[in-house]
Amino acid sequence: MNHLGIHLLVELWECSKEKLNLLNYIEDTMVKAAEESGATVLKTAFQEFNPHGVSGVVVIAESHLSIHTWPEHGYAAVDVFTCGTTVDPWKATLYLENELEAKKVEINSLLRGKIHS
Amino acid sequence: MNHLGIHLLVELWECSKEKLNLLNYIEDTMVKAAEESGATVLKTAFQEFNPHGVSGVVVIAESHLSIHTWPEHGYAAVDVFTCGTTVDPWKATLYLENELEAKKVEINSLLRGKIHS
Repeated sequence: MNHLGIHLLVELWECSKEKLNLLNYIEDTMVKAAEESGATVLKTAFQEFNPHGVSGVVVIAESHLSIHTWPEHGYAAVDVFTCGTTVDPWKATLYLENELEAKKVEINSLLRGKIHS
Repeated sequence: MNHLGIHLLVELWECSKEKLNLLNYIEDTMVKAAEESGATVLKTAFQEFNPHGVSGVVVIAESHLSIHTWPEHGYAAVDVFTCGTTVDPWKATLYLENELEAKKVEINSLLRGKIHS
């Protein structure tokens, strides 16, 4: 059995509430996380919310990274979905944990596109 | 215990290979899927690949939808991540299943941001 992609679903808790509310910082950090993993960044789409929170996605040649932040809970929901053998999604995750100062991290990992051959 | 979001990880198999390779069609269909679920569409970012495949994301006020297609396998990896009580992610999923003519569907559902209170 083979698979087409690896998907990490990352729960970042007890993050810096201030950082989670900074649109430009979150976008820059997500792009850098993608680059840390070895990915090629193609497009970004980010949005800030009133009164707080940021959502955004980085489309990479190898799939995508996404983030949704709830500063009031010190929480960010991060996804790192990569395909191919040249990108390491765990490096992006570790980078984000450190940058956002998460003190509690939960990760679910799923294989996507499982091919039975 | 409460949660901040619902995340459906959808494996669509045996889809229309032709449709999976049409950038504009895929983008339009993802936007319509978001609207079907009751979401408010904020931004889109889509990209086509050579020789085949499309990746893209719809950022919604209630989180995001993403898709990555492998026309050569008749496969699409779809994510529907929603927060709040006004959006039904299952409606978006059902819409995409029908539109992409998926004959085999696997769905994993996860609660994101589980708050222990």
